[in-house]
Amino acid sequence: MKLAALLTSAGINTAVSVVLFSLYSVLRKQPSFVNVYFGAKIAQVRSRQQDAFRFDRFVPSPSWILKAWETSDEEICATGGLDAVVFVRMIVFSFRIFSIAAIVCNFLVLPLNYFGKEMQRHQIPAETLEVFTIANVEEGSRWLWAHCLALYLVSCCACFLLYLEYKSISRMRLAYFTSSVSNPSYFTVLVRAIPWSREESYSGTVARFFTNFYASSFLSHQIVYRSGSVQKLVTDAGKVCKMLKLTPRELHIGSNSMRCGLCGTTASFSMLPMDAEGDKGRSDFGGSDLRKKESAAALVFFRTRYAALVASQSLQSRNPMSWVTNLSPEPGDMYWSNICVPYRLLWIRKVAILVASMALVAFFIVPVSLTQGLVHLDKLQKTFPFLKGVLKRKAMSQLATGYLPSVVLIIFMYMVPPIMLLFSTLEGSTSRSGRKRSASIKVLCFFIWNVFFGNILSGSVIERFSKIFKDVNYLLATAVPSTATFFMTYVLTSGWASLSCELMQPFGLLCNLFYIFILRNKDVTTYGTLTFPYHTEVPRILLFGLFGFVYSTLSPLILPFLLVYFSLAYLVYRNQILNVYVTKYQTGGTYWPIVHNATIFSMVLMQVIAMAVFGLKKSTVASSFVIPLIIMTLLFNEYCRQRFQPLFMQIPAQILIEMDRQDEQNGKMKEIHQKLTTSYTQFKSKSRTLGDPMPPNNNCRLEDLEINPGKSPVHHLSS
Amino acid sequence: MKLAALLTSAGINTAVSVVLFSLYSVLRKQPSFVNVYFGAKIAQVRSRQQDAFRFDRFVPSPSWILKAWETSDEEICATGGLDAVVFVRMIVFSFRIFSIAAIVCNFLVLPLNYFGKEMQRHQIPAETLEVFTIANVEEGSRWLWAHCLALYLVSCCACFLLYLEYKSISRMRLAYFTSSVSNPSYFTVLVRAIPWSREESYSGTVARFFTNFYASSFLSHQIVYRSGSVQKLVTDAGKVCKMLKLTPRELHIGSNSMRCGLCGTTASFSMLPMDAEGDKGRSDFGGSDLRKKESAAALVFFRTRYAALVASQSLQSRNPMSWVTNLSPEPGDMYWSNICVPYRLLWIRKVAILVASMALVAFFIVPVSLTQGLVHLDKLQKTFPFLKGVLKRKAMSQLATGYLPSVVLIIFMYMVPPIMLLFSTLEGSTSRSGRKRSASIKVLCFFIWNVFFGNILSGSVIERFSKIFKDVNYLLATAVPSTATFFMTYVLTSGWASLSCELMQPFGLLCNLFYIFILRNKDVTTYGTLTFPYHTEVPRILLFGLFGFVYSTLSPLILPFLLVYFSLAYLVYRNQILNVYVTKYQTGGTYWPIVHNATIFSMVLMQVIAMAVFGLKKSTVASSFVIPLIIMTLLFNEYCRQRFQPLFMQIPAQILIEMDRQDEQNGKMKEIHQKLTTSYTQFKSKSRTLGDPMPPNNNCRLEDLEINPGKSPVHHLSS
Repeated sequence: MKLAALLTSAGINTAVSVVLFSLYSVLRKQPSFVNVYFGAKIAQVRSRQQDAFRFDRFVPSPSWILKAWETSDEEICATGGLDAVVFVRMIVFSFRIFSIAAIVCNFLVLPLNYFGKEMQRHQIPAETLEVFTIANVEEGSRWLWAHCLALYLVSCCACFLLYLEYKSISRMRLAYFTSSVSNPSYFTVLVRAIPWSREESYSGTVARFFTNFYASSFLSHQIVYRSGSVQKLVTDAGKVCKMLKLTPRELHIGSNSMRCGLCGTTASFSMLPMDAEGDKGRSDFGGSDLRKKESAAALVFFRTRYAALVASQSLQSRNPMSWVTNLSPEPGDMYWSNICVPYRLLWIRKVAILVASMALVAFFIVPVSLTQGLVHLDKLQKTFPFLKGVLKRKAMSQLATGYLPSVVLIIFMYMVPPIMLLFSTLEGSTSRSGRKRSASIKVLCFFIWNVFFGNILSGSVIERFSKIFKDVNYLLATAVPSTATFFMTYVLTSGWASLSCELMQPFGLLCNLFYIFILRNKDVTTYGTLTFPYHTEVPRILLFGLFGFVYSTLSPLILPFLLVYFSLAYLVYRNQILNVYVTKYQTGGTYWPIVHNATIFSMVLMQVIAMAVFGLKKSTVASSFVIPLIIMTLLFNEYCRQRFQPLFMQIPAQILIEMDRQDEQNGKMKEIHQKLTTSYTQFKSKSRTLGDPMPPNNNCRLEDLEINPGKSPVHHLSS
Repeated sequence: MKLAALLTSAGINTAVSVVLFSLYSVLRKQPSFVNVYFGAKIAQVRSRQQDAFRFDRFVPSPSWILKAWETSDEEICATGGLDAVVFVRMIVFSFRIFSIAAIVCNFLVLPLNYFGKEMQRHQIPAETLEVFTIANVEEGSRWLWAHCLALYLVSCCACFLLYLEYKSISRMRLAYFTSSVSNPSYFTVLVRAIPWSREESYSGTVARFFTNFYASSFLSHQIVYRSGSVQKLVTDAGKVCKMLKLTPRELHIGSNSMRCGLCGTTASFSMLPMDAEGDKGRSDFGGSDLRKKESAAALVFFRTRYAALVASQSLQSRNPMSWVTNLSPEPGDMYWSNICVPYRLLWIRKVAILVASMALVAFFIVPVSLTQGLVHLDKLQKTFPFLKGVLKRKAMSQLATGYLPSVVLIIFMYMVPPIMLLFSTLEGSTSRSGRKRSASIKVLCFFIWNVFFGNILSGSVIERFSKIFKDVNYLLATAVPSTATFFMTYVLTSGWASLSCELMQPFGLLCNLFYIFILRNKDVTTYGTLTFPYHTEVPRILLFGLFGFVYSTLSPLILPFLLVYFSLAYLVYRNQILNVYVTKYQTGGTYWPIVHNATIFSMVLMQVIAMAVFGLKKSTVASSFVIPLIIMTLLFNEYCRQRFQPLFMQIPAQILIEMDRQDEQNGKMKEIHQKLTTSYTQFKSKSRTLGDPMPPNNNCRLEDLEINPGKSPVHHLSS
């Protein structure tokens, strides 16, 4: 690809982005779309709506950018939870390391590449982009030492920054533990695989077991009920009915997975309200019918947080497949239908899903390799001779090489996250946040294998599969630098476009227009609120990080584009966290270990590829100089794993004991215990949703569990 | 190799075994060798010695075989602990599955192989052994279905037997927990990485931390002291001195790793006796000197077993690298010098040892491949032309092919377990049993890679390394059947000879003779007692299991030899457990998961190789019929991992709570607490060893911690 083609692509994308960003700044001021662009605030403040027609509603303005820029991390944490902070820190980390890399590589490596002697020189606009990559450096050149130095600098800075981030996020996680004082999940243990007995109901068995072994700390318990299929039908009917008719105040607790289109299964419970206390008296759930509907799982409440922690960590009984205990997720985070899945089936589900997702990751490469064919213009002309005429025009050919391949790829890519989320649902995760976290790991593997390696190994990968193992070294060293240009366009199209898309919320916008113009529903705030789609956004940012690391020393021209992407991402995502997404549940920052591991993987890959390239350029000394760097990076990772990772798996006993003591001294414990038994409601009262206003405890999560309850800012709807 | 050569080899080995077994039955009756062959009993009964000269002392007799056969599993458990039972069960399992395999394969598969049509038929004694392998079956033959059927039968029986064994050993492990009532390790938590503070000694820090957070259950603590290098010198001098002079009663607690020759580092503490209580008053340990010698580790005693379990499982503090808690090993099992290693260095040690042992496993293949050259007679003659004359003689050539290669290999192999034990020591295991367990895994990997794959991939492996990945399938399918004969001779030489060796204890015998005839030390019971060398014996048995599985359908002629080996092993090892080895510590049966996983690995390998062979014989349907079998085997393994493995990692809380309650009801708790604080002694009193009799608590472990205290049989010295 020529430099001009790249610039064309950059031009198109910039124009599109600017237009969309301006459009957004206009649309967000329209009262009709307030529920699309201010979902989070609607959940907080339910009253103010200005409908007055003013002229400045139609003038593009950068005020939202200022707002997103000025907001502090504490406010982000208060609105979006620790996960949102981790997400923002990930972008900040990427921006920092790649601005260092951009300075080092563009001033040190790029000139050396350009003045290398391998290729013929043209005038700059007509220059092929490969002149700017390491491919242009002579074999055995002494200049490769500069590349080696750059590699060391980038790696060391990355390790240093990673360490600082891990440390500060660990500290935030500890603060998150201590600040969430009234979090009922710390007192609650989720017990699965309760053994079945003929004489007693599950409820009786649980009560007997825990009063026997945990007499001093056992408070009460709550059995999880299976939901029949008839109930499901009623629910679904009610949901459709409401979608078309009802006021928005009932719907804001609607399906949070609406955005993913395919995963409709996840919403089966969200509309079936019934109090845990109330349900025992209800006619359709009474007597022996109730016992039949009990599943072998229960929530057990303890008097202190420490007692719950202890009970959750031990192996309970002689049979490891019964009385399985874990700390319970937060009430809003419970994934009730998966909790009812018999525990003895879970392992086989996990194995099946592992196989299925590996198969998806492996065989998705077929469409990817087909799209890759579009980049090679000559190939395309050979396959479709009738295109020759069209492609001879310069503009068209530049469009075809610079824009189309990425677009096709992106369309394919949008199908994957919903499938992976479905897989994670079937896997049997007991919490919504856990499900999303597991999906994000799957999507990340998918992205790295299919987008990155899929493009490098290119079209003919399936035929050559046996050869790959043989000369993987050679392949990496030659194919990686030459695909740099493709990834540059990928950053331009997929990266920039996805940000505009994220900002515009086209799906929400369409839904809204559908409500207003097709259904003639005048109350426009009907569009349900969303939770942040970590499972698509985290892998995407990490994928761009992978590009950045791998190409920083080989083809540093990609770095400026990445920097623009990361700075836009910083603004856009902060805006979205503040305005659009509702935080119903969070993992408490456990996305960071994923980020850390993926970054280490990217760095090691960068080093291995650099080693292979140096070897190919016949600079064996430089090549072998990379080996200690790889070893040091791996050792650094191992150290971080020892030093920080346990905090993301377990809660330190010390903290919980101290919290318990404080509450006992303040005399708050009684109050917490009273709240505790009503905090988990599996079914929300059916009669209520059909007419009455929402029970108050649907809002309590947002207020109770905020990280800095004192600081919770009351935002206004439009700035 | 011809059948005759194999029979020659079998003849030689049988003769050698019979001679050695008879010799053993004579030697064991000699009072001079009583400490070599009755170490375990000397440890129990210290008085009776008959020195009367009787004629029947010099007549070979099979009485020991009867004794070994008749002993029940309970007696084995009482003498050798649960680990010994697991070891015996492993042999029994191998014997059972391979007798089934021998019946199925020798009656179903062997005739089909023999009447296949690929090779020229000779008279039976001159027949090459390959006639009996699958190599003799025609391509695309329908008879391959019989092989496939045999494969299914063997796999299903193996899974069934494995399940039964895992289940019964789990039950035994549970019984082991409940029966070891006064085990002090259940009350004790090993705390490492105590944070350093300027104001306080480690001892003070520990006391403050645990009285703060575990006020209700904390009993007392005991700091672990570093041992200076001067101390070490004194110890070593004292040891040598004693070795030459002292009475056996002091020496029976000597180095238990004496047998391994190389691992001398392990014995640095065993001779330095000093009471934990007494040491504070001693002049060389007083005042600030004492504080300097404190290491950042301590033993913390709790009031109940459950409290200790709880404290050991939680993450204690905000920094995961400080206050690391684990359940403590038993007093006799403590590996004091490793406990003093700073915790922050452990991870890097582990990484280094992992790399070192992988390097050893990988590069040991060079001598192995050289020895393999000896099997191919024609190659040998080409390399060393002067040998041609010698090798032309029939007997010599049969000796060279049937016996020598295995002998050379065995000599190399004896070097490996001590090295691996040294590695496991450096890795920083806190218990002797854990160290041996870790070494046994390393040795197992070593055996499987070097003995099995090393021989199959044969001499030219290093040059062809790049090709191996390409046609690993082809290689397995052709090389595995053709090396069957080598492994038959390996079973004969290494297997049978190692059993005779085990029985004769040549090293102990030589030491003893050295004492008697060179040092003129008339008191003959000076040879130290040994603990069972699980790290060499478990991998060996599993290696033979691997041979059995892989060759059961391909070349079933190996099975009878294996069966003889396993039945001899059953008798020999039971005899050794009863008479020779002392049980100072045990893992409580945690060798079984290793056995289980290795067996599953062998089975999957068998199935994959069979699939490759079927494919090569152009029976694709039979080949693809193996795939469901592989999947089922892996699923079975996953199920067992879920169902049984947690029991081998954690102690069920239920059991400990019940034990605590029982002790509290009986009023035994006080007594246990009193014993507890004196049960762990890091240094044994120096002045005592040099003259006084042993302090009683050196024997207490054997008596206290026996699994069935009531049943403890008092054996007589000779039967």
